[in-house]
Amino acid sequence: MVTHLWEVGEFGFIDRINQEMIPRPEWVIQGIGDDASVFQPKAGSVLLLTTDMLVEEVHFRIETTTFRLLGRKSLAVNLSDMAAMGAEPLDAYICLAVPSRLTFEDLDELYDGLREMAWEHRVNILGGDTTRSPGPLVINVALTGQASKDQVVFRSGAKPGDLIYVTGTLGDAGAGLDLITRGGNWSEEKFRFLVEAHLDPKPHVWEGRFLVERGFPTSMMDLSDGLASDLRRICERSKVGALVLEGAIPISEALSQYALEVGLSPLSLALGGGEDYCLLLTVPASRGAELEREFQEKFKRPIWKVGEITKEQEILLLDRQGRTLPLPQGGWDSFAPPQG
Amino acid sequence: MVTHLWEVGEFGFIDRINQEMIPRPEWVIQGIGDDASVFQPKAGSVLLLTTDMLVEEVHFRIETTTFRLLGRKSLAVNLSDMAAMGAEPLDAYICLAVPSRLTFEDLDELYDGLREMAWEHRVNILGGDTTRSPGPLVINVALTGQASKDQVVFRSGAKPGDLIYVTGTLGDAGAGLDLITRGGNWSEEKFRFLVEAHLDPKPHVWEGRFLVERGFPTSMMDLSDGLASDLRRICERSKVGALVLEGAIPISEALSQYALEVGLSPLSLALGGGEDYCLLLTVPASRGAELEREFQEKFKRPIWKVGEITKEQEILLLDRQGRTLPLPQGGWDSFAPPQG
Repeated sequence: MVTHLWEVGEFGFIDRINQEMIPRPEWVIQGIGDDASVFQPKAGSVLLLTTDMLVEEVHFRIETTTFRLLGRKSLAVNLSDMAAMGAEPLDAYICLAVPSRLTFEDLDELYDGLREMAWEHRVNILGGDTTRSPGPLVINVALTGQASKDQVVFRSGAKPGDLIYVTGTLGDAGAGLDLITRGGNWSEEKFRFLVEAHLDPKPHVWEGRFLVERGFPTSMMDLSDGLASDLRRICERSKVGALVLEGAIPISEALSQYALEVGLSPLSLALGGGEDYCLLLTVPASRGAELEREFQEKFKRPIWKVGEITKEQEILLLDRQGRTLPLPQGGWDSFAPPQG
Repeated sequence: MVTHLWEVGEFGFIDRINQEMIPRPEWVIQGIGDDASVFQPKAGSVLLLTTDMLVEEVHFRIETTTFRLLGRKSLAVNLSDMAAMGAEPLDAYICLAVPSRLTFEDLDELYDGLREMAWEHRVNILGGDTTRSPGPLVINVALTGQASKDQVVFRSGAKPGDLIYVTGTLGDAGAGLDLITRGGNWSEEKFRFLVEAHLDPKPHVWEGRFLVERGFPTSMMDLSDGLASDLRRICERSKVGALVLEGAIPISEALSQYALEVGLSPLSLALGGGEDYCLLLTVPASRGAELEREFQEKFKRPIWKVGEITKEQEILLLDRQGRTLPLPQGGWDSFAPPQG
C-alpha cells in the first residue's frame, strides 16, 4: 500500500514517526513538540555539535541503497565526527526535504534506520523539521555531544615523532561504491563486506571514547575523504609533516581480491576512496606498544600503525620498493564539477 | 565578475567565508575547522536547540528576494524559535546544498546576510557543511541557546483565564508575500513595510528574554504559521481552549490599506498569512496591566491582548458583530500537494 505524504500531512507524519525516539531520557527536558528542544548538560562538561547534509545524487542514490540503510548512514556519519573528538554523542536532530515521489512508507523506513542507529549508540532524536522538496531528497542531521574539557581531541595536536594509527582497514567503502557504480552484483557474498562498508558504515564511537579515556591521541579525526586528504588536514592544522609506509596500510582480504579482479590499485582506493569512517590518530611513540596491546584486548582486533609524524611539512609515502615519494593526492571535493 | 564554485573549491570557499563569524568568543573552544565545534555552556544553565530547513521554491524564490536577505531570514526564523522559549541564542550552524547555477558571489552575499543577523543578535557561527545540489538551493540552520532552567517557557502552560498576547501586528508578512506573488511592485514605498515583513523578519529575541525574565508567560511560541494554527498548538498542548476577539487583533495601517486595494480580508491574512515571527503568549489575568505598562516602557510600542484562554477545548472568535464562531482554520502545511 502506498500512502502519499499529503494524505498524512506534516503533523500526521510527526505524530507517526515521533515514537521511541528517546533511549536516554535522563538529560531531556523537552524533545520534539515545542519551538526548541531543551536538555540539561552534565555539570562541568563541554558541549560539541556537528552537522552534515546528505543530498540525493550527490551523496547517495536511492536506486542503490534502501531507505533503512540511508537512515542509518545519515546518523552514522555524524556519529563518526563525534567519535573523532572522543566525545559522547547525546542528541540528534533530523531535517528532511522530501520529494513528492516518496511515499509515507519510504519515510517510515528511513526513520526506522535512523532510530536503529540512534538506539545502537544510545542517542536521542530530539527534533528536526520536515518539508517538501521540488528536487532531491535532502537529509540534514545535527548531533550534539559532551566530553570533559581535558579529554577533547583536536586535529591540531600532532607532534614530530608521533606514530600515526588508523582504527580500521582502508578503502573498503570506496571499493563498495566502485562496485555499485560499475553495476556489479552488490548482494554477491564475496564482496558483501565492501558494499556494506559503503552502505552501512559503523562509526567508531566506542573506539574514540576508549582512546581519549586512556589519553592516547595527540590529534584525531575521522576518515571521511580518504587517508591522503585527511592526513593532510591533521598535518596542516598541526604544522607538521608525515611519512606513510605503503606496506603498513591495512587492506582487507576482500579489497585485495576486488582490486585484483577489476584491475584497480588497492593503494589508490585505500588512500582516496573515502568514507572509511574509522579514526585517524597520532600517538606519542613512547605509548605505541601500550596502545596496540590495549586496543587489541578491548576490541579483539588490531589498531594499525601506518606511519609517523615528521617535522618537515610534507607528506611522503615510503613505497614497497623503498622509494620515498609525495603521498598521492585524492579525495572528495563537494564542489567538484559534474563528471563528463 | 562571476566565479564558479568549482574554481574556488569547497576548502577555498570555507576559508573565504570563515571570517568574522565569532562575535562572542567567550564560550567558544573550537569553531569551524575540526570534526565538531566545542563550547563551554554557562554553569547551571539548560541548553536548547532548534533547526529549520529552507528549500528554494518551497520557502523562498531567488527571483523575489536577494541572497543577503535570504541569509538574514534563514537565521532569523531560528532566532525566532529561540525567542519563543525565552532563551539566549548562542551559536548557529549553517548547512548549504548549492546548485551549480549559483556563483561564488551569490554565496558570499548569502553569508553577508547570515553574518549581519548573527552580529545583530550576538550569535556565533560555529560550523556547518557546504555541498552541491542537483536541484534547489537548500539552507539548513541549527541554532543553540541557553537559559536558566526555571525560565524556559513551553507551549503547554496556558491556564483557563490567562490572557492571550501577541508582540507585533499580524498578517504583514502574509500580505507582503501576497503582493510579491501577484507580481506587485515590491519596492513601492506604500507597501514596503509589508514586503520587508516577509523578506526580512525581525525575530523578537529581546522581547522573549524580557518576558521570561519578568516571569510573565505561562506559555509561549513564535507565530510562524499564523495565529489560527499556532494558537491551536498552544491550546492542544495546554489542554485548554481560547476566545479570540476580532476587534483586538492588531492590524497595521499598511495591511488595512493593502487588503482594501486588493479586496482581501485583513482578518484572513492576520489569522492565516503566516511568518509573522512575533511571539504569541499567555499571561495570568492578574498581571495583564503590569505587562502592558512594562512592555510599552521597555520597547516603546504596545503588546497586544487578543483574547483569553478558556476551559472548553475549542477555539472561538468573537467577531465585530458580537457573534461567536469557530476560529477559521488556515495556516501552512509543508506537505500540502502542489497547487493547480
